[in-house]
Amino acid sequence: MAHPRLSHNIISTSCWPLPELLEGCRAAGVRNVGLWREPVAELGLARTVALLRDAGIGVSSLCRAGFFPVSDQEQARERRADNLRAIDEAVAVGASVLVILAGGLPSGSRDLDGARRQVTEAIAALAPVARDHGIRLAVEPLHPALCSDRSVISTLGQALDLVEQFPADAVGIMLDAYHVWWDPRLWSDLRRAGNRILGVQISDCPHELRDPLYGRELPGTGVIDLRRFLDAVDEVGYDGPIEVEIFNHHIWSRPGRDVLGDIVRGFDELVAGAVAPSVEDT
Amino acid sequence: MAHPRLSHNIISTSCWPLPELLEGCRAAGVRNVGLWREPVAELGLARTVALLRDAGIGVSSLCRAGFFPVSDQEQARERRADNLRAIDEAVAVGASVLVILAGGLPSGSRDLDGARRQVTEAIAALAPVARDHGIRLAVEPLHPALCSDRSVISTLGQALDLVEQFPADAVGIMLDAYHVWWDPRLWSDLRRAGNRILGVQISDCPHELRDPLYGRELPGTGVIDLRRFLDAVDEVGYDGPIEVEIFNHHIWSRPGRDVLGDIVRGFDELVAGAVAPSVEDT
Repeated sequence: MAHPRLSHNIISTSCWPLPELLEGCRAAGVRNVGLWREPVAELGLARTVALLRDAGIGVSSLCRAGFFPVSDQEQARERRADNLRAIDEAVAVGASVLVILAGGLPSGSRDLDGARRQVTEAIAALAPVARDHGIRLAVEPLHPALCSDRSVISTLGQALDLVEQFPADAVGIMLDAYHVWWDPRLWSDLRRAGNRILGVQISDCPHELRDPLYGRELPGTGVIDLRRFLDAVDEVGYDGPIEVEIFNHHIWSRPGRDVLGDIVRGFDELVAGAVAPSVEDT
Repeated sequence: MAHPRLSHNIISTSCWPLPELLEGCRAAGVRNVGLWREPVAELGLARTVALLRDAGIGVSSLCRAGFFPVSDQEQARERRADNLRAIDEAVAVGASVLVILAGGLPSGSRDLDGARRQVTEAIAALAPVARDHGIRLAVEPLHPALCSDRSVISTLGQALDLVEQFPADAVGIMLDAYHVWWDPRLWSDLRRAGNRILGVQISDCPHELRDPLYGRELPGTGVIDLRRFLDAVDEVGYDGPIEVEIFNHHIWSRPGRDVLGDIVRGFDELVAGAVAPSVEDT
């Protein structure tokens, strides 16, 4: 059976239909999945909820809301409406954590500071709504290669500067090893992060990274010291699910069941002796 | 005529033979070039020196030495020998600045801290030799996407932590806007950098960066606020050449003379009012 800390982020098997994927996870003993809104919308919220319940599978996080920097008020209203819908969806699927991607520069803009201000202001407006619904916003710093089009929040330190402006029970961090492993300040910032870590994701980075979006690999096959990373998040007290989230067209082209098998085995090898079982399992 | 601060890094027209390139620069009024060791080796040191002299063109920097992290002592000796040759070549071509790329992780290694220690130790050994030859080592922080295979030194702050361990007349920074523009700490670290900035390079980043090595663009065509960047390096007192250094297969496939024309015009537009002429020209 799969390690109790493993959560299968469904993007890692993005071509596997959700009903089969959830049945595959159940059969493999995977207790949680990281969900994405698009396949949930396709299947329907009610059907998704029923399938999760029947399979006995929890939702470690719902991906994704955010994308705050905009060029005009109409875009701002559209983004806000979509982010409010994301909170409702998180409630419906039983995810207590909603992943927030800051968003990149608005088209044609070079104003990084302005975009970052928009992110702070939008989170200030969204966080109270999320908290009222029992949802915590998990800001995910993304790799600097994705700064211009996906997230003007790039490092853990920068994300902490942002989220510490809000209550810890409302806003925290989704920390993905792939996005931050290179950061010379990672270990000291992790000690600072403490109870702000709301979720953890892993994948690996090849020695020659030529595609920063889709070039991620199965944990254990690349250059990231994931044992040290998982030990470090353990040490700051994070004992929740660890999502394996892989963006890779080649891996996506393989049968979902095979990929899930590789993920379950790779996770076991990786965490053997490195990560404590969650409190529920001791 | 080209702006007096413009230096043409020859990699931007990597398929243009060096003799024609230098003649093209002379005709366009470009006063300096950023040289690379490979084409110099191909043409021969003596011939290169003669061509530079005849064209009246200076060398703003020689690229590149470094690549310090190694797996064993034999590799370490090879790297050291090559780095000593690079110092001799810098002397020969009249470059006072030798660009240092830290290097990535040794093959099969996940030990980032160890690799970074090797970088510090190797620079400690190389810097006195360079200084004796009148050459300053300019450590270039590279984009985090290139951490594993090209440079375990990724940010300006991290590079400053490194170079400040050595005398300012021996070791400093090559600062390329492309590699650091996304960094939330860039502006404060730049103020800290002061006289450690030994060279400046620019290119641009497209809104969707899908190839972090070869996806760079002509200055002014992307998302980087290069005006602000050049103003900031100006403010810390850097008044030397500004190299335009572009890695892009499409641009490399165009005639060198056309690309140089675009660079000269783009640089003029960019710096109009933003960058002071160098002291020599006032």
